[in-house]
Amino acid sequence: MLPVFLDLTSLRQAYDVGLSPLDLVEEVLARIEASDDPAIFITKTPADDLRRAARDLMARSPQPNSLPLWGVPFAVKDNIDVAGLPTTAACPAFAYHPEKDATVIARLKAAGALVIGKTNLDQFATGLNGTRSPHGAPCSVFDTAYVSGGSSSGSAVAVASGLASFALGTDTAGSGRVPAAFNNIVGIKPTPGLVPNVGVVPACRSVDVVTVFTGTVGDGVSVRKVMEGYDATDPFSKKAKAAYLPATGLRIGVLSNTEREFYGNAAYEALYDAAIERARTLGAHIVEFDYAPFRQAAELLYNGPWVAERLAAVKDFFTTNATDVDPTVRTIIAGATAYTAVDAFEGLYKLEALRQQTFEEWAKVDLLMLPTSPTTYTVDTMLADPIAKNGHFGRYTNFANLFGYAAIAVPAGFDVDNHLPAGVTLFGPSFSDDALAPFADALHRAAAAGMGKDKQAVLPEASRVLEQDDGNVTIMVVGAHLSGMPLNHELTGPGGRLIKTCRTAGDYRLFVLPNTTPPKPALIREPGFSGNGLEVEVWQVSPDAFGRFVQNIPAPLGIGKVTLDDGSKISGFLCETHAVDGAHEITALGGWRAYLSELKRGAL
Amino acid sequence: MLPVFLDLTSLRQAYDVGLSPLDLVEEVLARIEASDDPAIFITKTPADDLRRAARDLMARSPQPNSLPLWGVPFAVKDNIDVAGLPTTAACPAFAYHPEKDATVIARLKAAGALVIGKTNLDQFATGLNGTRSPHGAPCSVFDTAYVSGGSSSGSAVAVASGLASFALGTDTAGSGRVPAAFNNIVGIKPTPGLVPNVGVVPACRSVDVVTVFTGTVGDGVSVRKVMEGYDATDPFSKKAKAAYLPATGLRIGVLSNTEREFYGNAAYEALYDAAIERARTLGAHIVEFDYAPFRQAAELLYNGPWVAERLAAVKDFFTTNATDVDPTVRTIIAGATAYTAVDAFEGLYKLEALRQQTFEEWAKVDLLMLPTSPTTYTVDTMLADPIAKNGHFGRYTNFANLFGYAAIAVPAGFDVDNHLPAGVTLFGPSFSDDALAPFADALHRAAAAGMGKDKQAVLPEASRVLEQDDGNVTIMVVGAHLSGMPLNHELTGPGGRLIKTCRTAGDYRLFVLPNTTPPKPALIREPGFSGNGLEVEVWQVSPDAFGRFVQNIPAPLGIGKVTLDDGSKISGFLCETHAVDGAHEITALGGWRAYLSELKRGAL
Repeated sequence: MLPVFLDLTSLRQAYDVGLSPLDLVEEVLARIEASDDPAIFITKTPADDLRRAARDLMARSPQPNSLPLWGVPFAVKDNIDVAGLPTTAACPAFAYHPEKDATVIARLKAAGALVIGKTNLDQFATGLNGTRSPHGAPCSVFDTAYVSGGSSSGSAVAVASGLASFALGTDTAGSGRVPAAFNNIVGIKPTPGLVPNVGVVPACRSVDVVTVFTGTVGDGVSVRKVMEGYDATDPFSKKAKAAYLPATGLRIGVLSNTEREFYGNAAYEALYDAAIERARTLGAHIVEFDYAPFRQAAELLYNGPWVAERLAAVKDFFTTNATDVDPTVRTIIAGATAYTAVDAFEGLYKLEALRQQTFEEWAKVDLLMLPTSPTTYTVDTMLADPIAKNGHFGRYTNFANLFGYAAIAVPAGFDVDNHLPAGVTLFGPSFSDDALAPFADALHRAAAAGMGKDKQAVLPEASRVLEQDDGNVTIMVVGAHLSGMPLNHELTGPGGRLIKTCRTAGDYRLFVLPNTTPPKPALIREPGFSGNGLEVEVWQVSPDAFGRFVQNIPAPLGIGKVTLDDGSKISGFLCETHAVDGAHEITALGGWRAYLSELKRGAL
Repeated sequence: MLPVFLDLTSLRQAYDVGLSPLDLVEEVLARIEASDDPAIFITKTPADDLRRAARDLMARSPQPNSLPLWGVPFAVKDNIDVAGLPTTAACPAFAYHPEKDATVIARLKAAGALVIGKTNLDQFATGLNGTRSPHGAPCSVFDTAYVSGGSSSGSAVAVASGLASFALGTDTAGSGRVPAAFNNIVGIKPTPGLVPNVGVVPACRSVDVVTVFTGTVGDGVSVRKVMEGYDATDPFSKKAKAAYLPATGLRIGVLSNTEREFYGNAAYEALYDAAIERARTLGAHIVEFDYAPFRQAAELLYNGPWVAERLAAVKDFFTTNATDVDPTVRTIIAGATAYTAVDAFEGLYKLEALRQQTFEEWAKVDLLMLPTSPTTYTVDTMLADPIAKNGHFGRYTNFANLFGYAAIAVPAGFDVDNHLPAGVTLFGPSFSDDALAPFADALHRAAAAGMGKDKQAVLPEASRVLEQDDGNVTIMVVGAHLSGMPLNHELTGPGGRLIKTCRTAGDYRLFVLPNTTPPKPALIREPGFSGNGLEVEVWQVSPDAFGRFVQNIPAPLGIGKVTLDDGSKISGFLCETHAVDGAHEITALGGWRAYLSELKRGAL
């Protein structure tokens, strides 16, 4: 009844046709039991507790799919508090028993989701590879010799292997994206501040983000929307307006040759190039940009004073229990003591100087598209050189949270012999989380790489992310605002774009409005009148610019809804009828431009 | 010919009637020569250089007042680079000879202003009192026993004593505001990031701001506008949209009794209360707010890791030349070495947690009004206890730059026996610099305290800051959008405010629009029709909300310009005339509300 990959669409359909959350729970318990990777979970929700949660849900909201995540099983990285289960951050000596759910957990439970367990991670979320845990290294669902990626290792593997519909990770350097790439799933990394961190063990508190792993972008966005929203008790939580992106013709920034580094993994480079071609096919404008300032910021995160945040997060524990910490993690955290407050501020100056440089690059592009990780390694290779090899995974991820971007990592197909998957990540400006989702989804679908370990899975149509309203509004102009006319600057000045030239429906009449400077026409609808329509232009402007524009229109003109020749109704210029009493009618000329041209050649 | 106080209006008038910049230069040189405070300047522009600058200006732009600051003499705090003059930061051993002007200096010179010299300051801008300099302590222009305030001490005294039309300060903790209060002048403190800091010796680089001292708010705004604008070479320079404030009925936050601390200076407390009364008289709504989170942030600046920025700014010099530094400043900077990077990040966490708390207070108010300094001291009292007494001056200033606010400090009259002046400061949200100026100016004028040492000076009308367009637009509604009606939420939802209920002009007719849900009327203008007008409401919304609102209006309704009974024309609902053919006319009832009421009681 249920597919290998427990995506939200399939699960909802199963509930619609009679599956009960209790059935689902038994299925999940059986799948966990049958799982051949013993390193995924640190703590599983006890079976009876999970059954009780399902029964409670059915009592609270009996109708199937009556809540946004009704009966949806999810796994939680073990640095996020779930009341009743220990939080360990993969360090047994650090474990504590939280009394309260993290804010995001409380919101997900309220929406009907069921916690199946706490997953393994690179200890204290310090790593991008998945090997830094006393509970063992979860491994790639495609080859047990290879790392799963981290630090949200267990969460990614749980989703990719069909144990949960989604899982929560956290992402400081790239922990919510790298394991998505290595397990052929989607990683949604919200803009820092969009999703509260209350109840999350910090890694670098100023840049940590709770993330979501899913099979599709649409599923991930659905989950994120449940988790997001201001929480005043999180110092870094933000209220902010959504950022928009153009609805069509996205300019997508890609690596130039000088900034390409795949550490010898030609297959991964080829997969990046293939993703660029898919983006082009989808209508994007591909633009090479200079990655240097982003790379330099990325280097600050592990090789700069931000490491001190990792010590700040656990300093009391670290003072007394350093020997309980994974040796590699210990080396990294201990490195923090070398940094002074002067270093911290100098790091901030450097970051802000780099941010200024990035603005030059953002002027050229709407989104960035980078390899999620430029290569992958076996567990043995990683353990032999754990800091340098881990650093390779972060080459194209570490800058994202320092600069406050939204990012979505999507699968990008498999390397030679259909062996291991790679991914690409799309980065957008702060709070462009919704705006970048449609393109990320389209790019994912175009890769036709399945979901998680099910390479043949077809992404359900119901989870498709539709192109969003880009927030702009359209306006039809008929006279002095047409291209090249005296008032056209009122549209181009605030960034308006010409969408098309077309005609109105046939029941409009056009007059020369008397005594106007510059000369203007008057458009009037007369039901029953049968003409050929008038030539008009359709422009797109921001609501703010539109509001100011409308505010400046003098009587007797105004903005109503005008029907175009394709039957659509859009905002456009109309005139009060009394003003055309006795005015010269020019309907037969077909438009204002034709009238002016006749006037110029003296024909009128 | 020239008044005691060289405000811009008086100077421009003098230029208009024949004063030459060369005359001005001689006058300024004579005033400097006659000045009885030897501690104002560290370096004066050599007389011949100043004469040459005036001649160069006349050659470059001969017409009087042909540049925004044509021939305007100004003084520069000696931590801001002026090419050709040494920059010392009041530490002779630190002195260097800049090759380039600071960005702000280059912009001011390009606008025609003339640098008369570099002014004294608390060394490295570390202090709020003006006594921490090897060049002596500039003193209050009203009593030489009293401190001038600092750190921009010389700049404030230069303006207050009529040596310059304006002067530049810098402000980290309050250095651009406290000396304004103690010398009866205006201190304009821009939002951090609005004015570039390139070429300024940092104090705390992440929160430093270049400020302006003038006689009036209008003069200060004029100068600030010349200086402001993005500079990509300043890591903290920002491009941002201006923030608006309501045009009328400002809610002004004032100290509650529990947060009042004037260190025993009852006269200053009385002057604060008098300023509150003036604000009330000017139409403000006075609201007590909780200063606690602002106070706690203020304490972080000197008693937290931000002190490390002061060391970061001069660390190479400090390592080799600590004994060349003023003992009090040395103690403060040396304290920075105690802070680790962990402390720096923990300070950041605390600041951001406090910022979240301030949002609760900002929900109640549009601006804050606080005493600029709660008290003042003699030089001797200050020197006897230099760190604690200095801290008193910063009680109501230190938070401003950490939270990114705009602020304007204005005079608030004189204490007992008309002896020493006090000030109040208005604080607005980031980039409300222009928005808060009209009220600050009105409050200053209401104090009638003169300008600088000229207590009888009348503030020139020409420098009055007019109330700004608050960026909102007005819209007239006549039917389903009226208060309490089914679509009123389309106005209240995005924050619309009811401005008034009134009537249209007499030549409008009102009809019941057939087949609408909810029921809607149709307003039509008919020139020559003589009725009593229709009852309508006028609402105010943001342009963005207005744009979205207009976009959602269905045909045959639209937005045109409607004439009200007072003759004003504002945006409002009109209807295409063809739609009222045969419709029921309700003009005689006087409005939609009256029609619905008749309908309800069955009279129709």
